[in-house]
Amino acid sequence: MKRYSLFCFLIAFVLVAFPVFSQDKISGFGTAAAARELKMEKSLDSLIDPKDQQQWMEFLSSRPHHLGSVQDKLNAEYMVKLFTEWGYQTELAEYNVLFPTPKTRLLEMTGSVKYRAKLEESSLKEDRTSGQKAEQLPTYNAYSADGDVTAELVFVNRGIPEDYETLAKAGISVKGKIVIAKYGGSWRGIKPKLAAFHGAIGCLIYSDPADDGYGAGDTYPKGPFRPQDGVQRGSVMDMPVVPGDPTTPGYASTKDAKRLSVAESPTIMKIPVLPISWEDAKPLIESLQGPLVPAAWRGGLPLAYHMGPSIAKVHLKLEFNWDLKPVYNVIARIKGTDLPDEWIIRGNHHDGWVNGAADPLSGMVAVMSEAKAIGILAKNGYKPRRTIIFCGWDGEEQALLGSTEWVEDHAAELQLKTIAYINSDGNSRGFIHGGGSHAFEPFFNEIIGVVKDPQTGVSVRDRRYASEMVTGDRAKRARIMGNKTTKLSALGAGSDYSPFFQHLGIPSFNIGFGGEGSGGEYHSIYDSYDHFIRFKDPGFAYGVALASTGGRMVLRLANADIVPVDFTSLYQTIAGYVTEVKGLAENMRTDAEQDIAMAAEKLYELARDPKIIYVAPAVSGKVPFFNFSRIDNALVLFKTNADLYKKLSAKADQLPDAKKTALNSILYQAEQSLLNEKGLPRRPWYRHLIYAPGYFTGYGVKTLPGVREAIEEKNWTEAQEQIELLAGVLESFSAEIEKANAILK
Amino acid sequence: MKRYSLFCFLIAFVLVAFPVFSQDKISGFGTAAAARELKMEKSLDSLIDPKDQQQWMEFLSSRPHHLGSVQDKLNAEYMVKLFTEWGYQTELAEYNVLFPTPKTRLLEMTGSVKYRAKLEESSLKEDRTSGQKAEQLPTYNAYSADGDVTAELVFVNRGIPEDYETLAKAGISVKGKIVIAKYGGSWRGIKPKLAAFHGAIGCLIYSDPADDGYGAGDTYPKGPFRPQDGVQRGSVMDMPVVPGDPTTPGYASTKDAKRLSVAESPTIMKIPVLPISWEDAKPLIESLQGPLVPAAWRGGLPLAYHMGPSIAKVHLKLEFNWDLKPVYNVIARIKGTDLPDEWIIRGNHHDGWVNGAADPLSGMVAVMSEAKAIGILAKNGYKPRRTIIFCGWDGEEQALLGSTEWVEDHAAELQLKTIAYINSDGNSRGFIHGGGSHAFEPFFNEIIGVVKDPQTGVSVRDRRYASEMVTGDRAKRARIMGNKTTKLSALGAGSDYSPFFQHLGIPSFNIGFGGEGSGGEYHSIYDSYDHFIRFKDPGFAYGVALASTGGRMVLRLANADIVPVDFTSLYQTIAGYVTEVKGLAENMRTDAEQDIAMAAEKLYELARDPKIIYVAPAVSGKVPFFNFSRIDNALVLFKTNADLYKKLSAKADQLPDAKKTALNSILYQAEQSLLNEKGLPRRPWYRHLIYAPGYFTGYGVKTLPGVREAIEEKNWTEAQEQIELLAGVLESFSAEIEKANAILK
Repeated sequence: MKRYSLFCFLIAFVLVAFPVFSQDKISGFGTAAAARELKMEKSLDSLIDPKDQQQWMEFLSSRPHHLGSVQDKLNAEYMVKLFTEWGYQTELAEYNVLFPTPKTRLLEMTGSVKYRAKLEESSLKEDRTSGQKAEQLPTYNAYSADGDVTAELVFVNRGIPEDYETLAKAGISVKGKIVIAKYGGSWRGIKPKLAAFHGAIGCLIYSDPADDGYGAGDTYPKGPFRPQDGVQRGSVMDMPVVPGDPTTPGYASTKDAKRLSVAESPTIMKIPVLPISWEDAKPLIESLQGPLVPAAWRGGLPLAYHMGPSIAKVHLKLEFNWDLKPVYNVIARIKGTDLPDEWIIRGNHHDGWVNGAADPLSGMVAVMSEAKAIGILAKNGYKPRRTIIFCGWDGEEQALLGSTEWVEDHAAELQLKTIAYINSDGNSRGFIHGGGSHAFEPFFNEIIGVVKDPQTGVSVRDRRYASEMVTGDRAKRARIMGNKTTKLSALGAGSDYSPFFQHLGIPSFNIGFGGEGSGGEYHSIYDSYDHFIRFKDPGFAYGVALASTGGRMVLRLANADIVPVDFTSLYQTIAGYVTEVKGLAENMRTDAEQDIAMAAEKLYELARDPKIIYVAPAVSGKVPFFNFSRIDNALVLFKTNADLYKKLSAKADQLPDAKKTALNSILYQAEQSLLNEKGLPRRPWYRHLIYAPGYFTGYGVKTLPGVREAIEEKNWTEAQEQIELLAGVLESFSAEIEKANAILK
Repeated sequence: MKRYSLFCFLIAFVLVAFPVFSQDKISGFGTAAAARELKMEKSLDSLIDPKDQQQWMEFLSSRPHHLGSVQDKLNAEYMVKLFTEWGYQTELAEYNVLFPTPKTRLLEMTGSVKYRAKLEESSLKEDRTSGQKAEQLPTYNAYSADGDVTAELVFVNRGIPEDYETLAKAGISVKGKIVIAKYGGSWRGIKPKLAAFHGAIGCLIYSDPADDGYGAGDTYPKGPFRPQDGVQRGSVMDMPVVPGDPTTPGYASTKDAKRLSVAESPTIMKIPVLPISWEDAKPLIESLQGPLVPAAWRGGLPLAYHMGPSIAKVHLKLEFNWDLKPVYNVIARIKGTDLPDEWIIRGNHHDGWVNGAADPLSGMVAVMSEAKAIGILAKNGYKPRRTIIFCGWDGEEQALLGSTEWVEDHAAELQLKTIAYINSDGNSRGFIHGGGSHAFEPFFNEIIGVVKDPQTGVSVRDRRYASEMVTGDRAKRARIMGNKTTKLSALGAGSDYSPFFQHLGIPSFNIGFGGEGSGGEYHSIYDSYDHFIRFKDPGFAYGVALASTGGRMVLRLANADIVPVDFTSLYQTIAGYVTEVKGLAENMRTDAEQDIAMAAEKLYELARDPKIIYVAPAVSGKVPFFNFSRIDNALVLFKTNADLYKKLSAKADQLPDAKKTALNSILYQAEQSLLNEKGLPRRPWYRHLIYAPGYFTGYGVKTLPGVREAIEEKNWTEAQEQIELLAGVLESFSAEIEKANAILK
């Protein structure tokens, strides 16, 4: 309580001592509103205390706190208590979800060279929580199938589609084999999915030391990178099809929800999958025979990598407890004074794989700082005009379980009321990065242009610009020099924005800092408080910067007269994606023509080394020309309307309130017109036609996913169908802008 | 003798059985001459026997045969005997050259972790000559300084100029330190040269396993790559300044030649240098502290590479016997029937570092096949019209000693009489590669268009084209599709063509096959007959292809009516280089402007990680605009004259003999007009203004070296001076073409 009084004093001081110049302009705000907003933001900064974040993280990471653990629930309750103290109406939103945990894990190599994998990370005296063995989840991949398989091993590099093409050219099949793949290069769940597709009966995924071990830097505890027995846990559920509880796809896992069986679930992996350390992988990789891998496949182990198969056989036995576990989402609301039915939602997950300090607590504690500061502001007369909802999600690591079930549970209300969802996850020293809805790109840039970088004192936008310039090549430098605007990245998957954004079409963001806190602790017992404060963000300076950024985004959206959108930015972004997709088709056409000509001249046959097995792939068919005209026409209209909106909206803050409300609901709901109600082909849950995670890449975004993936997969009929659908949503979006313009005229 | 009779029968058979169609055209030949030539070439092919090559290699590689060894002289005498048998007037051209060999080699790490380097390659039961310890040269770098130094160690990556820039930015100096560099990325002699320039007192060079050890494939004896204790011997004399005996720079090491002392020699390394295996390097690299290296510097050892310095000190002690050794060049002539004073010279070195099967014997035995076949042809009535000289060089490994001293000894006569010098060196399975004088590019392509690839049956040119297409990216494929012409590469340094080409301006070539015989045996005891026949060219099929290619080149040049030049090809090549150099200046100008602007905004300072030491480099000065107009004008004239020559020379074979002789001497001596008598700045021995090895890169060619290196080194005054000198030689060359055209008009 003493601290609290001090804060009240501080606010008073700040609000008096730093009169804000009235000429400061903020998008979406009239002059008076802007002055009030800027005062609040100054106070916000003064109320963010790195010591809070340090204390919260220390508690929250003190024991393993995965979904279903004792500490997971304790953490949720701890957060409920804090949010309530800060003046929030707080609840635990609970769902029951399927979460398998291991009963049996056995990996051994039989034959002349015997090896039994350790499957265990070492306790370290330098890491105080690493010895909490009884509570740690063992190293495993959640939603692997049960299985007991014995087979030869084949090395599949990253296990992505092009790797299987390379194997096929070398005459290597994975049918009936167990594959071993390197982590990285795709979302992990893609690896067993494709392995199973190609006939493999088991899948191992290991952390190659070139990626996040000694190849990247000194290993823990000397440095931050993955030690020899460090293992990356993680989910292998088929989330690019649909995230959330795999037995309730597309609807909430409420108590009485009808559930699919494990066998019926479309997203549970069909073969056994196990993640291992490089120490456990080394004897297996040493046993591989067959062709040498191509140079790009090589890892950092001190040996010559071969494709396989192995002479020795590998035995993999996995059994799981297929139990329902309770998800505890923390939902904390502060009701808006003027517009309580317009919501700003800010979230981060709170569950980890083990002690989860960097992932997710580094982001969670920053979000808590924002909530605490906004709570104090509200108590001191600076209540938000709109409702703000802070969310601490549970079960993100398994499959965005907590957020997905909650969003599915409240879909209609969320689509009606939510102006934006702002997500964070892990955070560390470095550079601001933001992804999200491109109509909000200028809004985002205004904010990062005023948040100070703790290491240099310039704005975080300017520091990011410096980094882009310094790491850029000559052409990039020439292109961006003098333009400090940070492009929002397109959102794929990998954190809790997916249900809001790609399922419901709610404008969304994912924000954080990074680039100077690299390590190899990800999803291991070494993602600990001790690791974090040495390597990730000592002193929580970037935790403060994140709270300052996220808090401003929340406050501005909560208090703006007009939702600060810029449809011209969105137009430019989409037009860029369309150019890309046309280029993709062009390049595929050129490649196919070259391929046909080269095959006709037998060039592949002539160029190959006759001592190396080479199976010529089927010659590509020609790539047809697509009719993009409806998209091109839609974009012209889009641009015209967007430019007009920009002009007309300059004085929108002076509209009467009823018109403002009508206008705002168009502005924030317009993103929903980019949804196709039937969703993307083969994955109806993903409905946004501009952004989706890649069906065959996972986390990685595919922009214009319907069109792009149809072309990539050479599904020419579907490509043209998707072009029409995309044109349709662009036309719908244009119509929404027209409605907004009509109000403004 | 029995074999010989069989060959006579074969020739007779071939000459009768394969009547050549008279419409076959060869550049430089009239119809009648072409028919005779094509007959000879068919016979040539029939006379190349892989069993010969296998037997010669087996003998020549049976014992270590480095310069000064017993076997080196035995090999030279063996070759003299053979050439003499084949009808050649053969001599041993002997010179006395300085060749230091080790007396003391000590490398140890002192301090808490002690290590004494093994400095020894293991004998292998799978390699019959690897145990000839008494005769093997120890692992060392020839022309290292004597020295006894103790200091901390610093890792300098490849040890090239940009690596020192990176070290400087990280605040690391090598002054007073011993450096350790990876082999590769430059000629090895550059590494100690630059280390000494930056103040280092000793230099270690090791073979990183990523480059030619397990990172490249299975290691010997399982596979062809360098085992853990394999070491690359080699010279570190400053050959980019001047090759040959370092005590007789620019003149022959004849018995009574005046000699510089070792201290006076400009090219002997000033600090002690030792090559080591990765097994010996590992404990040293493990002892390095300081910053992590950038990603591009990492090697294949299972550890995190640091820049250093080390805590432990390294002690390096080297002493050498600075003895004169005899060089035995084998020089074998067959006198031309019509034009005995016009010479075609074909050479390969015969000395190795140890048993030297791949390097150099794989090339040498192919050249011997050519000589044997041409000798038999001559005995059977098909004597060459011009004189052919076959050369087996000694002491190439040390510094092109044998060739350089011989060329310096006979410089004037060689410039007067030599139409071309054709060099080979190591050879293995794979693809034809040729470098050399670009006026002969169509000539080279005509030949490789008829030599059959032994693995596929198509021409070696077509197979190379297939490889270029298959390995090329989309843009390259589009550029070269359907055009099977192989571009001659530009010659830098690294084999015996340098004195002919870059010192005397004699049209030269370097030819060979490779790309499918990669290994890690280079300059180690494992470059053996046993290694070669397993991995490099089993059955000597590509030894035959090389003899077929080289033999044709020799015969066509020896018998042509008109020297088959195409000045338009040379023009196009030089014009391309000029465009490149202009682009280099442009890019440096852009870079400097960006650098200045970025420094003014403190972007380097803002972007850096404050936890990592960063010393901002001096801001670049602006790059001036150069006056290229004289070159541009010279090129226009060059093109006009070259195109006219092409037109006028179409029926040159019908000129009267005297005119032909006058014309030919212009054609083959024109290359000399590209020399500048004063040579390149700081290295007068290198006089060719179109091609030279890089002053700071070694082997790697720098085209238009005077201009290019002045710009690269930001020596703006010299750059403009060199532009004028280059324009001058282009004008001189044009004048030579005009003279040729005058004869033809």
